[in-house]
Amino acid sequence: MSKKLTTREEDYSKWYNELVVKADLAENSAVRGCMVIKPYGYAIWEKMQAELDRMFKETGHENAYFPLFVPKSLFEAEEKNAEGFAKECAVVTHYRLQNDPDRPGKLRVDPEAKLEEELVVRPTSEAIIWNTYKGWIQSYRDLPLLINQWANVVRWEMRTRLFLRTAEFLWQEGHTAHATKKEALIESKQMQEIYAIFAEGFMAMPVVKGAKSESERFAGAEETYTIEALMQDGKALQAGTSHFLGQNFAKAFDVKYTSKEGKQEYVWATSWGVSTRLIGGLIMTHSDDFGLVLPPKLAPIQVVIVPIYKNNEQLDLISEKVSVMVSDLRKKGISVKFDNRDTFRPGAKFAEYELKGVPVRIAIGARDLESNTVELARRDTLEKQTVSQDHLADFIENLLEDIQNNLFNRAKEYRDEHITEVSNFEEFKDVIENKGGFVLAHWDGTEETEDAIKEQTKATIRCIPNDSKFEAGTCVFSGKPSKQKVLFAKAY
Amino acid sequence: MSKKLTTREEDYSKWYNELVVKADLAENSAVRGCMVIKPYGYAIWEKMQAELDRMFKETGHENAYFPLFVPKSLFEAEEKNAEGFAKECAVVTHYRLQNDPDRPGKLRVDPEAKLEEELVVRPTSEAIIWNTYKGWIQSYRDLPLLINQWANVVRWEMRTRLFLRTAEFLWQEGHTAHATKKEALIESKQMQEIYAIFAEGFMAMPVVKGAKSESERFAGAEETYTIEALMQDGKALQAGTSHFLGQNFAKAFDVKYTSKEGKQEYVWATSWGVSTRLIGGLIMTHSDDFGLVLPPKLAPIQVVIVPIYKNNEQLDLISEKVSVMVSDLRKKGISVKFDNRDTFRPGAKFAEYELKGVPVRIAIGARDLESNTVELARRDTLEKQTVSQDHLADFIENLLEDIQNNLFNRAKEYRDEHITEVSNFEEFKDVIENKGGFVLAHWDGTEETEDAIKEQTKATIRCIPNDSKFEAGTCVFSGKPSKQKVLFAKAY
Repeated sequence: MSKKLTTREEDYSKWYNELVVKADLAENSAVRGCMVIKPYGYAIWEKMQAELDRMFKETGHENAYFPLFVPKSLFEAEEKNAEGFAKECAVVTHYRLQNDPDRPGKLRVDPEAKLEEELVVRPTSEAIIWNTYKGWIQSYRDLPLLINQWANVVRWEMRTRLFLRTAEFLWQEGHTAHATKKEALIESKQMQEIYAIFAEGFMAMPVVKGAKSESERFAGAEETYTIEALMQDGKALQAGTSHFLGQNFAKAFDVKYTSKEGKQEYVWATSWGVSTRLIGGLIMTHSDDFGLVLPPKLAPIQVVIVPIYKNNEQLDLISEKVSVMVSDLRKKGISVKFDNRDTFRPGAKFAEYELKGVPVRIAIGARDLESNTVELARRDTLEKQTVSQDHLADFIENLLEDIQNNLFNRAKEYRDEHITEVSNFEEFKDVIENKGGFVLAHWDGTEETEDAIKEQTKATIRCIPNDSKFEAGTCVFSGKPSKQKVLFAKAY
Repeated sequence: MSKKLTTREEDYSKWYNELVVKADLAENSAVRGCMVIKPYGYAIWEKMQAELDRMFKETGHENAYFPLFVPKSLFEAEEKNAEGFAKECAVVTHYRLQNDPDRPGKLRVDPEAKLEEELVVRPTSEAIIWNTYKGWIQSYRDLPLLINQWANVVRWEMRTRLFLRTAEFLWQEGHTAHATKKEALIESKQMQEIYAIFAEGFMAMPVVKGAKSESERFAGAEETYTIEALMQDGKALQAGTSHFLGQNFAKAFDVKYTSKEGKQEYVWATSWGVSTRLIGGLIMTHSDDFGLVLPPKLAPIQVVIVPIYKNNEQLDLISEKVSVMVSDLRKKGISVKFDNRDTFRPGAKFAEYELKGVPVRIAIGARDLESNTVELARRDTLEKQTVSQDHLADFIENLLEDIQNNLFNRAKEYRDEHITEVSNFEEFKDVIENKGGFVLAHWDGTEETEDAIKEQTKATIRCIPNDSKFEAGTCVFSGKPSKQKVLFAKAY
């Protein structure tokens, strides 16, 4: 095995980068800012996709696929959206390469093959999709239109980090069309709720649900609902957003429907997305100095079995026992790997699965055969125990549930300890600088104050929490009247 | 419902285009040559993906994800591959838009934001992947490396048709690395076999397995193994290919491994892919003048139930019966839809599901309640029968299997009737022009003859069939000696 990870205490950012690479999740590629998602990392994404896709379909959404490219004239049609993304667009200008006369064997862009209209590689698909919806929506009978797309998108970010911020990333983007404002609002809140259920129930990552302030909204949205998680270093992570788009895109692309009453009305829209960024959140919620810690519900391998043997005879006897265990576990839908490679010693295997965050490790040796036991180690607490081989599958099924719950509770405890209410700006700065985490404080509702606070502390308004009560107060920064406390934090 | 489809007899190509759009599978987009895959079409793709992905994983492959973009210097590294794709590459040259000073509210490419090196939108990923594998492979212990990617690719085709040839399409591309030539050859043939099993067993589309002639090989391959299907209009469709790449990419990207004996060796490679083109093949294998005909194993809806009622009381009674049927069918894993919309009459619903190719349609009315029957229509033969409600789920389970088999047998019969052996060029031309289908003929093995035949008949060598025996003969065109018959056809 390669040498130990940098500890989180030493350098959290370095720890993260090392862990992503050493645990075989992803790596940087030859393309600036784009990552390669390695099989182990991709397997986590597949598990995430499967659960989300199921939840989307259960709530009536269907998948479809729209073009990667957005012609510039469509891209610029909804001005706020275009303005928001213009600075980070990859643009296709040519459609052919040719032999380079100056460099034999090399190619160059064929200057004759210039596109009449440049194509933007989608940073998000509202424009191309709403241009398509124009043809799909005529009558109230065509609504609601509930569509999701699994796709890659490109945003030419200057500072990138594996999973958290990459020039290309994978995501899903839902795009729905509704007859009424109320329906669209309900949809956008429903999707926020689904994201929260996924984050907490599967990722074991507690989130605060809330609405974005105007300056933090998606470009072109009238409301952005968000789920905000807290990472171990005290920084927040925006983990998923759901946008109420009003009639902005319907107006930009002239999408109207005939109502039951025979009137022509603009359609109401939502869009919502989560991305491979979630994997970054998963890592920074649970992992430790020994490596990844994965919640069982998203772990590609939930149980690994390592044989401890001195000779082939022993291995044969162990393998026989293990094959029954494996079959019992698989019957329960538990994914299990029997690592009988003879090229690695047990100690190296233990370290590997620790690094890769496999929730439960079973070691079984000759003595265990005699005593009808196995040694069982849980990744979350690093505790070991000797348990009977009888009813092992039942035991592990319960244990996996325990681990899932323990991870959530542990993360929630940390998160709850790191929501600090403050009543003046000195306290605010102190918490942001020294303790970290979320700060709950009154805000006067102006962008000037938001900007000034960001300028001085790097903290931004993460959200106006859904459960934030209306109460008279004074802004922590300006001293002006405030109606509500909002949540601040430094963020990824 | 919209008016009837153009018949296949009238204009096969028009029939196809109309059917794809009217059955809600896909449509052209605002981007030249790129399609929108609509939810019903995408649901078929999801079914295909699920089966293929399962087969890939069962044979030890893992999924991963590599960047969309290929830096030009990597793209051109393997010269044959680069040459083969250079003419159809979308190229990203800039990474930012800005306000257009001449057109207020509009955007233009920011001339300052030119990339130092142009990025090719992947037409296929050998280059970016082999550049990555260089870092992953050091020792024989790292081999074989068996990786697959589900992704979008872009090939700037000039003449496009929905599903069959589009500028952007969805596909999977497997890229494997092996220690020996033999292993790589076995892998590439295994994947051809998996594609054939999928085509015949799930798509009910018979295929001929064979090897491509040199001129028809994938750019950069040493062998291309293909599965070739026959469409109803007598034209062939290349449905999937698996390439033995030799050490070409290993050499271009300097990917070596240390063998057990401690020697440095270049790695052997394969790649293989199938795409959304398969949906075009599915349509042109089974469908008829009334619309789509889908094999049950890939039909998003396998059974539709349409109630026939005069009043709500009748509908309630019918719905009660139907809910039991639905639950019985779902228990068997059969996907079923109860279409109780009151906005459409039964006749319109029948036409819709006929158009959409739902394999089994059940109609149930008040009289059926009395007689404990349903009316059952199968889409493949358009036959109707009255069957008992008792054991209906068992009956339908068998029926779906029958339909699946019938579709395969029917397509195979047609295909077999359209493999014509010829011994001279007059016959060859006659069959290609008048009867259509595959022509089996001796070929002298030269590219000149291939080109001349293509020039005169538009037929190309589809493959040298795996089961083609070695036998002395004379080339159907040149009269020169030939060792083997090969398969010609006009092709999509």
